[in-house]
Amino acid sequence: MNHISDKATLMPGVVLGDNVTIEAGVYIDYQCIIRDNVHIGRDSFIGARCILGEYLADFVTRRERGVHPLTIGEGAAIRSETIIYGDTVIGARFQTGHRVTIRECTTIGDDVRIGTLSDVQGHCTIDDHASLHSNVFVAPDAHIGKYAWLSPCVTLTNDPTPPSEVERGVVLEPFSIVAAGAIVLPGVRVHTDGLVAAGAIATKDVQPASIVVGNPARERGSVSQIRNRDTGEPVYPWRYHFDRGMPWRGLGYAAWREQNDTDLPE
Amino acid sequence: MNHISDKATLMPGVVLGDNVTIEAGVYIDYQCIIRDNVHIGRDSFIGARCILGEYLADFVTRRERGVHPLTIGEGAAIRSETIIYGDTVIGARFQTGHRVTIRECTTIGDDVRIGTLSDVQGHCTIDDHASLHSNVFVAPDAHIGKYAWLSPCVTLTNDPTPPSEVERGVVLEPFSIVAAGAIVLPGVRVHTDGLVAAGAIATKDVQPASIVVGNPARERGSVSQIRNRDTGEPVYPWRYHFDRGMPWRGLGYAAWREQNDTDLPE
Amino acid sequence: MNHISDKATLMPGVVLGDNVTIEAGVYIDYQCIIRDNVHIGRDSFIGARCILGEYLADFVTRRERGVHPLTIGEGAAIRSETIIYGDTVIGARFQTGHRVTIRECTTIGDDVRIGTLSDVQGHCTIDDHASLHSNVFVAPDAHIGKYAWLSPCVTLTNDPTPPSEVERGVVLEPFSIVAAGAIVLPGVRVHTDGLVAAGAIATKDVQPASIVVGNPARERGSVSQIRNRDTGEPVYPWRYHFDRGMPWRGLGYAAWREQNDTDLPE
Repeated sequence: MNHISDKATLMPGVVLGDNVTIEAGVYIDYQCIIRDNVHIGRDSFIGARCILGEYLADFVTRRERGVHPLTIGEGAAIRSETIIYGDTVIGARFQTGHRVTIRECTTIGDDVRIGTLSDVQGHCTIDDHASLHSNVFVAPDAHIGKYAWLSPCVTLTNDPTPPSEVERGVVLEPFSIVAAGAIVLPGVRVHTDGLVAAGAIATKDVQPASIVVGNPARERGSVSQIRNRDTGEPVYPWRYHFDRGMPWRGLGYAAWREQNDTDLPE
Repeated sequence: MNHISDKATLMPGVVLGDNVTIEAGVYIDYQCIIRDNVHIGRDSFIGARCILGEYLADFVTRRERGVHPLTIGEGAAIRSETIIYGDTVIGARFQTGHRVTIRECTTIGDDVRIGTLSDVQGHCTIDDHASLHSNVFVAPDAHIGKYAWLSPCVTLTNDPTPPSEVERGVVLEPFSIVAAGAIVLPGVRVHTDGLVAAGAIATKDVQPASIVVGNPARERGSVSQIRNRDTGEPVYPWRYHFDRGMPWRGLGYAAWREQNDTDLPE
Repeated sequence: MNHISDKATLMPGVVLGDNVTIEAGVYIDYQCIIRDNVHIGRDSFIGARCILGEYLADFVTRRERGVHPLTIGEGAAIRSETIIYGDTVIGARFQTGHRVTIRECTTIGDDVRIGTLSDVQGHCTIDDHASLHSNVFVAPDAHIGKYAWLSPCVTLTNDPTPPSEVERGVVLEPFSIVAAGAIVLPGVRVHTDGLVAAGAIATKDVQPASIVVGNPARERGSVSQIRNRDTGEPVYPWRYHFDRGMPWRGLGYAAWREQNDTDLPE
């Protein structure tokens, strides 16, 4: 039995499974497939032809519809053709680009953004306000911390000696940055404010606020040395210089942190 | 009110918005979604389940259907599951692979080709006869010049210090080449006939007809030194050695240029 | 005329062409498009909105439905939104992730796996038990041997001097490994047990059981030196240390090989 708010909008061609809950203000565009046990929080937008609660291996291989719930928090903006598996919990104000794939056993906090074509392979954790740009690959067992920033075409790996049974997920600490096209090797930890440069192959842990560059990546000093080329001003740690889409917008990070989340770094 | 030529073919399941114009000879395959204010030029082929005139942020976040026209020139061949936003103008004979994504405020010339999975993030310009192969990522503010050639899995970036408000698009001049898997850093200009080698990380401008290699990319001489391994003949500038799909086919570049476009390099 | 087993399940919205054969036990999920001359072997699972037997250029450019058969062996598990062209033969127990694209004139053996977003550009051969992870790009003319292992985001190229008419496909011999994000240049052969490290740009042939690292890739000894970091045990050749999904599971490679396929390396 389904619970569909009469204040929700379902466009033609939407397919609904069983035990689906759709709250008020939700908009579901053409031809979406909402499988069993999916809960969509209020005011969310679901773009055309998304598949939510996608089948796990039990159905694909044995046609057994196990119970694999998917919960999506309020105010989501999930763009067209995104696929999200069951056994996944997603917080409020989740945003995606197009054709994102998120597999099972993924836990996603509030205010997370995941860009077009990104592929989250499941069994991982993405904390509040983390931002993944287009075409990011996330192998299982990754832990992406709060406010971590992943530029386009980043690859997070997990198998140190492919193929093997060993799985060592990458750990990105809060406010760490992985720039475009970089590859982070299995088990590598990027500490707070650490920066993996564009195209770098990070084979070892990245120390706090240090920058690593090259193939293999080598440390090249502190992010505090990096300047805006036009103004000459420092740009890292970025939380003091960038606030678009951030909760400290207009307030400044220091003042906001004191009132809201003193577990975050200064 | 829509203007659908009676010489157009719409397969079952096509969804049409308002103010759609479809010219004679157009074929639209199953389940395409054509949103408002889309104009498709004559004899175009639109593969199954494309979304043309896709919603911008005003609809996703506020459910406001702003006016964001999309114009596609005649003779397009847009393969299945491609998504193209509104506020975009595309010239004649546009060709795509599957699942291409093209966001808003993109201006595309005539005879452009964009391969499977490529992701053009909008606010950029792609000039006549540019060719993007599969899985190319184009950050905003890029300018891809005439006859620029991008091999598979190329990444064009735009944020020099992520995350920041600074946007420096890449510039690819006419006949420049970016080979497979290369990454071009923000604001880098690849001059005419310049070649970024496969897997190179281009951090600085690439001089005319020079080749850059490695991570970070370093100059390694002139493209004129590169030979066909079998024949020993030079292969660059490529316009003198390659004409498949080019307007000088059968005529030779020099003769064609004299008659057609003397703004192009000799 | 179609031959659809009465023991097959077709969910609503499936579109069928002509001369389609669907054997017993097949499950075809919502809104799949099965074009002409497609044969799906028994007990296969076809996820939602796959397109099988996709049109080749004759239809796209001239609207001519040529005869381009696609055969998929028994027991396939093809996940949602995968596109497979005609003129292709696929063996038994084929598995894909989501949104895989496989173009024409591809020959795929038994027990092959191809991950989410991978793009096989056609005119290539993938032998039994080869495994391609997510987002692998395969240029035409590649030959991927038995038990070859490709990690996520690998790029196999084929044009030595883009753009040109020369096509030199990559050759991956049995049990070779290409790790995450590596790029293999045109015509390169990775010999048996050779390993291209993560992020490496392989510009030359990789000798048997040797490992190559960096940009450009250089040889760094033998894979036999690589150890499991926790146990200190060797991990290569991997067939003696890994058996998940392999036919020698529970038996050991040596014993299995003697009984089954002595053409494979010891």
